[in-house]
Amino acid sequence: MSYTHKIQYYETDKMGVTHHSNYIRFMEEARLYFMASNGFDYSKIEEIGIISPVIGVECEYKNTSTYPDILNIDAQVIEYNGFKLKIQYVMTNQDGKLVAIGTSKHCFLSKDGKILSLKKAMPDLDNKLKELCVKN
Amino acid sequence: MSYTHKIQYYETDKMGVTHHSNYIRFMEEARLYFMASNGFDYSKIEEIGIISPVIGVECEYKNTSTYPDILNIDAQVIEYNGFKLKIQYVMTNQDGKLVAIGTSKHCFLSKDGKILSLKKAMPDLDNKLKELCVKN
Amino acid sequence: MSYTHKIQYYETDKMGVTHHSNYIRFMEEARLYFMASNGFDYSKIEEIGIISPVIGVECEYKNTSTYPDILNIDAQVIEYNGFKLKIQYVMTNQDGKLVAIGTSKHCFLSKDGKILSLKKAMPDLDNKLKELCVKN
Amino acid sequence: MSYTHKIQYYETDKMGVTHHSNYIRFMEEARLYFMASNGFDYSKIEEIGIISPVIGVECEYKNTSTYPDILNIDAQVIEYNGFKLKIQYVMTNQDGKLVAIGTSKHCFLSKDGKILSLKKAMPDLDNKLKELCVKN
Repeated sequence: MSYTHKIQYYETDKMGVTHHSNYIRFMEEARLYFMASNGFDYSKIEEIGIISPVIGVECEYKNTSTYPDILNIDAQVIEYNGFKLKIQYVMTNQDGKLVAIGTSKHCFLSKDGKILSLKKAMPDLDNKLKELCVKN
Repeated sequence: MSYTHKIQYYETDKMGVTHHSNYIRFMEEARLYFMASNGFDYSKIEEIGIISPVIGVECEYKNTSTYPDILNIDAQVIEYNGFKLKIQYVMTNQDGKLVAIGTSKHCFLSKDGKILSLKKAMPDLDNKLKELCVKN
Repeated sequence: MSYTHKIQYYETDKMGVTHHSNYIRFMEEARLYFMASNGFDYSKIEEIGIISPVIGVECEYKNTSTYPDILNIDAQVIEYNGFKLKIQYVMTNQDGKLVAIGTSKHCFLSKDGKILSLKKAMPDLDNKLKELCVKN
Repeated sequence: MSYTHKIQYYETDKMGVTHHSNYIRFMEEARLYFMASNGFDYSKIEEIGIISPVIGVECEYKNTSTYPDILNIDAQVIEYNGFKLKIQYVMTNQDGKLVAIGTSKHCFLSKDGKILSLKKAMPDLDNKLKELCVKN
């Protein structure tokens, strides 16, 4: 159930390869797909009044990609404690070659910016994240 | 009072030049700078509850640009009738060479999406746009 | 055989909708998909030493889209004379509502920037474009 | 000598704030400005045949920014050993509030992709980076 991103021409730069900033965007695509695949559309979470901002990202670039490569991105919950969430992304190309590994960290906020305990604010998502977390 | 945009590395593509979609963004930068220079910060117009969406764009690409070129962008109101606004952008590089010419069309909406007569909704901006319009 | 683009969160702006510049990028995605579907991968055209820059774009925005909307984009060759190519894009959302209509104009260049007659430089592509052109 | 980036409307997302991926781009802007301010235009380094890809990035988001905020970005060489370079970026807004802290890691390659010792390939840049490194 990995997410597929086709590299677009506009995502390349004059070095001839995918610009490194775009992988941070691919991580977002893969994260929202992963959450939706597990029953939680981010657009619906926002409708409830919960936002989940990115509080940190990391990405290590192992090999380049370029148009028209196809990336497969596997997302995995690697940390979750009810307040903070960390997701890891392993990005490989159409030949199975590792392109990049990244992580993103998230918290959960009410619309007025207060930090939420997801256990109270959205217990079904809290359960799902606990279940998904590989370290549980 | 032309607007200056320095081409960034991430704005180039694998053809080695600025990706054509970015000029549409440079037009927005120049438009907001032009409006602010004339006393109308778009962020303040939004605070009043008026939004001014883009309803059409055109751009003709005459010469390429690339990192680290510097574009000078001259914006000019070429049409304004109280409801619709058309702005033209002439983009030249650091050597005075024409790079691109574009236009953008705009209307004015209330937050609930109703078309506004700017004469009623924001008479000072209406006056300024009439004054700025080169065809007046 | 229309092209599908899922609106990404990072493609929206603070107005809450897809930023207008991104439709120019979606047009590129649809164009490259359309060409590949007709047997001409742009990456292979580039390998032969032919580049096909965008020399002009137009886009009319009819309705907004936002994350997580799904756009269907139909591309069509509307003008082709052996030297210049014009493609039209009709973009509708998941409910069949028209979102935007755009066009892009292209020429064909050798790597050293000379204008090419496609009939001489790449007769199979020349034939295909003539066949695809709706005005033929 | 900090670098200034004005947040653009197109850099915001539907959360109403600067999309997190853009800070990675601001880091590139600040890095190239920082290098140029120290006598090393990246475009000239590329002309010599040396490329300096990003091999990793990190960014911690401390506070949001939005259009029309102005970011001041201070870049600093925090690690350099002749082969690998690590730069840190402290990003504050117009009120001096910390917005984000990031780092980027780089190596130096010949055009055919071989890892270079900068001491041999470009001794003046090697000297400058040693001089700039805060840990020296």
